[in-house]
Amino acid sequence: MLIVMEKNATPDQIKAVEAAVTARGYEARPIPGGERMSIGVLRNKGAVDASLFLGLGGVKDVIPVTRPYKLVSRETRSEDTVVRVGDVAIGNGHMTIIAGPCAIESEAQALTIARHVKDAGAHMFRGGAFKPRTSPYSFQGLGLEGLEILAKVRHETGLPVVTEVMDMATFDQVESYADMIQIGTRNMQNFSLLRRAGRSTRPVLLKRGMAATIDEWLMAAEYIMEGGNTQVILCERGVRTFVHHSRNTLDLSAVPYVRRESHLPIIIDPSHAAGRRDQVIPLSRSSIAVGAHGLMVEVHHQPDQALSDGAQSLYPQQFVQLCRQSQAIFNLLDEGPTAHP
Amino acid sequence: MLIVMEKNATPDQIKAVEAAVTARGYEARPIPGGERMSIGVLRNKGAVDASLFLGLGGVKDVIPVTRPYKLVSRETRSEDTVVRVGDVAIGNGHMTIIAGPCAIESEAQALTIARHVKDAGAHMFRGGAFKPRTSPYSFQGLGLEGLEILAKVRHETGLPVVTEVMDMATFDQVESYADMIQIGTRNMQNFSLLRRAGRSTRPVLLKRGMAATIDEWLMAAEYIMEGGNTQVILCERGVRTFVHHSRNTLDLSAVPYVRRESHLPIIIDPSHAAGRRDQVIPLSRSSIAVGAHGLMVEVHHQPDQALSDGAQSLYPQQFVQLCRQSQAIFNLLDEGPTAHP
Amino acid sequence: MLIVMEKNATPDQIKAVEAAVTARGYEARPIPGGERMSIGVLRNKGAVDASLFLGLGGVKDVIPVTRPYKLVSRETRSEDTVVRVGDVAIGNGHMTIIAGPCAIESEAQALTIARHVKDAGAHMFRGGAFKPRTSPYSFQGLGLEGLEILAKVRHETGLPVVTEVMDMATFDQVESYADMIQIGTRNMQNFSLLRRAGRSTRPVLLKRGMAATIDEWLMAAEYIMEGGNTQVILCERGVRTFVHHSRNTLDLSAVPYVRRESHLPIIIDPSHAAGRRDQVIPLSRSSIAVGAHGLMVEVHHQPDQALSDGAQSLYPQQFVQLCRQSQAIFNLLDEGPTAHP
Amino acid sequence: MLIVMEKNATPDQIKAVEAAVTARGYEARPIPGGERMSIGVLRNKGAVDASLFLGLGGVKDVIPVTRPYKLVSRETRSEDTVVRVGDVAIGNGHMTIIAGPCAIESEAQALTIARHVKDAGAHMFRGGAFKPRTSPYSFQGLGLEGLEILAKVRHETGLPVVTEVMDMATFDQVESYADMIQIGTRNMQNFSLLRRAGRSTRPVLLKRGMAATIDEWLMAAEYIMEGGNTQVILCERGVRTFVHHSRNTLDLSAVPYVRRESHLPIIIDPSHAAGRRDQVIPLSRSSIAVGAHGLMVEVHHQPDQALSDGAQSLYPQQFVQLCRQSQAIFNLLDEGPTAHP
Repeated sequence: MLIVMEKNATPDQIKAVEAAVTARGYEARPIPGGERMSIGVLRNKGAVDASLFLGLGGVKDVIPVTRPYKLVSRETRSEDTVVRVGDVAIGNGHMTIIAGPCAIESEAQALTIARHVKDAGAHMFRGGAFKPRTSPYSFQGLGLEGLEILAKVRHETGLPVVTEVMDMATFDQVESYADMIQIGTRNMQNFSLLRRAGRSTRPVLLKRGMAATIDEWLMAAEYIMEGGNTQVILCERGVRTFVHHSRNTLDLSAVPYVRRESHLPIIIDPSHAAGRRDQVIPLSRSSIAVGAHGLMVEVHHQPDQALSDGAQSLYPQQFVQLCRQSQAIFNLLDEGPTAHP
Repeated sequence: MLIVMEKNATPDQIKAVEAAVTARGYEARPIPGGERMSIGVLRNKGAVDASLFLGLGGVKDVIPVTRPYKLVSRETRSEDTVVRVGDVAIGNGHMTIIAGPCAIESEAQALTIARHVKDAGAHMFRGGAFKPRTSPYSFQGLGLEGLEILAKVRHETGLPVVTEVMDMATFDQVESYADMIQIGTRNMQNFSLLRRAGRSTRPVLLKRGMAATIDEWLMAAEYIMEGGNTQVILCERGVRTFVHHSRNTLDLSAVPYVRRESHLPIIIDPSHAAGRRDQVIPLSRSSIAVGAHGLMVEVHHQPDQALSDGAQSLYPQQFVQLCRQSQAIFNLLDEGPTAHP
Repeated sequence: MLIVMEKNATPDQIKAVEAAVTARGYEARPIPGGERMSIGVLRNKGAVDASLFLGLGGVKDVIPVTRPYKLVSRETRSEDTVVRVGDVAIGNGHMTIIAGPCAIESEAQALTIARHVKDAGAHMFRGGAFKPRTSPYSFQGLGLEGLEILAKVRHETGLPVVTEVMDMATFDQVESYADMIQIGTRNMQNFSLLRRAGRSTRPVLLKRGMAATIDEWLMAAEYIMEGGNTQVILCERGVRTFVHHSRNTLDLSAVPYVRRESHLPIIIDPSHAAGRRDQVIPLSRSSIAVGAHGLMVEVHHQPDQALSDGAQSLYPQQFVQLCRQSQAIFNLLDEGPTAHP
Repeated sequence: MLIVMEKNATPDQIKAVEAAVTARGYEARPIPGGERMSIGVLRNKGAVDASLFLGLGGVKDVIPVTRPYKLVSRETRSEDTVVRVGDVAIGNGHMTIIAGPCAIESEAQALTIARHVKDAGAHMFRGGAFKPRTSPYSFQGLGLEGLEILAKVRHETGLPVVTEVMDMATFDQVESYADMIQIGTRNMQNFSLLRRAGRSTRPVLLKRGMAATIDEWLMAAEYIMEGGNTQVILCERGVRTFVHHSRNTLDLSAVPYVRRESHLPIIIDPSHAAGRRDQVIPLSRSSIAVGAHGLMVEVHHQPDQALSDGAQSLYPQQFVQLCRQSQAIFNLLDEGPTAHP
């Protein structure tokens, strides 16, 4: 951390800042510049809270230097983490496609879609049993019945299943049915849920918050890893911006950045980013091309009758095309030695 | 809802859309324009999900018309709601100031600050016992011990206390100690928590999410009201934008907008919006001047030694000034007949 | 346009709105709903200004329906526009790569880089002679000398050249040297410059403004086309968001959206979006995969000594890799019949 | 500037960075930390371009420390600048209200409105003769005729007039008619126009760009001051965010921040921020309460018939209320010794 003093800061103010740094157990290193003094904060383990010094007299700015995360950092672990869900491997040289409906609506619906996506090449099945909905009057998911349908899908198709957990009350239940647990966008900083996920034996798919910086996202993953669960997959799904032509703005530069900063796998959810079907295939190709380890895509055999998010669900035949194009791009990159930046 | 067709939509596509509208139980009203057909969706109660029709053939756009909220809407209840916390009234002609430290650190700290803010004119005391922190390595609050200190503050000073609840596991505990329960920014769409708050007998202070639209915020309040709890106060605390010079961007036009759309009281938290002390007093004046029903402000007698958010905490004497200026502006507006737009 | 009335709007207010619509020369079509009246505005040519009706008594909302652009719209011209710059074709089935330094620094620098990028497969050369710089104290470009160097590059390598024009005073000069004229991000709504570009005989590369919606961007192109110049290429270069890990956030969903709405070609500038070298190649692959018609990339043989934007300039050997990977992805998509959505 | 090295940066990489710093004429100061090396860049005059070092081997981050602006900085000139336009003083203890229609439509319209706003207490008159419009098909202003009407307004009412200049071609003309020249949002980084304004003898009102940081805005003012014109007024008018309920999001924390960083006056345009009439008065009160030096407000005697921006124009009687409330708040703050932070 670097504390930048005002040009006209007095020697007493500078001493007071140095004393405050020392009092917190750090070392203060004065760095005289041409026009003003700066003070380096050293001997810290992990990031230092900027607000400790920002309000002191004569201080103009406090600039963080150290990244706040440890366990998720590539500086802590240099090799890529590979997460295993049953026979499926996610990360480091594998491309994983997860597909299924937004919400589980019935056994027939789930099984029909699951067979479609399996045939097209999906590696895992997704489907919501507990649905976070903006409105209390919208369909909230089938709950336990939805989980039982997911178990049936796994049994019938052999596909591992991933589904979202919304709270502590249903965590054990979700954990006992799902092969991988999803923590959704709105819960990315639900710290109690993250701590519980840290004690889970299931891999966790952690979606990025709608306006989360990468640092905040990685710190959410840090909560899970700090609890002992090292099987974390990051999922970018678009951030909120001023843009109207897609529901969110897919932030694809997050992929090379996360791959440099962290050893965790990162996949993309183009369906929630786009919010409309006609952008999903282009964004899927784009996601694999930028270096993501996989995709999570919404597919429905009758999207016009879906109980939620029908507009962004692909028809089965579109999903076939998506898989074929994504696989082709992945194969192409995999051959080149510098494909993964 | 208005469904706008492509210019070259075929009669069959138009019929299919009308059929889809009817199949959902709504009435379809064709509206021929000069160049293209639009289809009105009528007889809906509450908002219609745009995604039901957005993906149909020949559809260019689906435009929501009805607001999605009911119970929170001024169209449902035209008079301002006044929330009562002990002797304190919030809303409709009252100006309420809530103040205290970011986190409860000790009994001595809490009592010292509480006496300061009471003397300066605060109506309620705030202080975190359970703290949502970006990092798992930061101070997480004193928990139950913090709640007991809050009870002591109330007993010693007579000030009602408000504190944040982070999860279901500690909800009962928080509810039994606090006079008002805060749901924080990161939990604005923690729907399980909102439902639990809907069953609470305590008033709820609902902070706006970091990137929430007003509609989403009001829908979160709708979850609470739908559960039976009508004592909800909205709290604007800044939204995330590209801006760096403050921690968040305080969205003050939310105040006239919310006051027009809803009957619920709305207050402002300038401390978290600013993130630095020197903007808190100007933004507080500004908040009262725009028509907010009150303020929630962080105050600390030794901000340089605070365990969290010291940089944005006011010194007690600054808080005196804040109260004096805010009250003066409030009095001034209160005299004019058109002060509250 | 749809005018939505308040639930409690009076018959007189409704009549006044209808009269206001008629007075502007449009037709007013009342659409009674279950709870409130809406009024359709018909017989308009082009978009109607929402502010004409938004302030009338009893009006809750005014919702635009018609797109504001005409000449750039795919509804006006259904086939893709192909822009030709010398022998180079841009749009509809061609992939065009434009490369070169941020700024022209010297003849030796420009020629060295031009030969590198030509060998690697670039189709056009880029380089700034007049540079828009945030600071008046930064290097502002070589001006006329830079233009002469560009002419020399074209003569030596055969590559057509594109360079930015900053104002009317230098427009004629730039026009006489450049094969294609670039209008930069900061000038996207410099309407005088757009009108001048509309009278130019040169194709125009129109960069998206830093916070421009697609509608605003297409309307800027409309200014140029309305002046008579139909040779316009759109260039997405990232928008400003809360994100820090890249300089801007590349908005790739703009590509399928623009390709659906407009017949104009759209290319991507990954260098300015990223702001750092290590994201440029992944974002380039991603741009071609999403369906863009080409790339504009900064390359420098000695980026550490560049006078501007060195951090985002690729080394020549990296550019070779970029071209190879981009071409491979393009070829792959070109084979599939549904590759371009 | 601080260059932060990767943890595993080699001694050679560190040496190369030091050499690069020295080669640019700066001094390199190594700052060894617990885990990694940082390198301070000293002896720079003004800000250093981060991109010079960001791409070097082993560099993790480059962190700017020095502010890029000089002449506009309060560190250069500690006393508030007061800009004088005729008898009107703007800045440091004065509150200035500028009002008038969005566009000059006719002599009768301009004079009627001017008399209204003068009676209500406005100090200057505003009105557009050259209008920047998103659409080439919208009303573009009366041009020279509009300027002549402005001159007539000044002659009849004694109010100084301010109007926007859009390009170099009409600058001399605007300069000869207007008492103060406005540079609009879309031209904030039209550097040629800024340089021309720097040579003007008229005061310049510089609006903030729609997505401009404060640094970029102050650097735009620096362009004008660097040209020799010290009479610059900053005008905040809302920034673009994800928010829909107002046209832009008014960034009021810009006021205390700018007042701390710069000696230039800062006023607020609530009309363009709001985009709808019912938010203009609350935001005006708010702007004065936060410490702005004045307001620029749109007023129209027949807003329903305005040729542009009618929805945000106040009725004359509303403007009377705005002036009364703003003046009352200003008087109130002026009495307190610490009112202006």
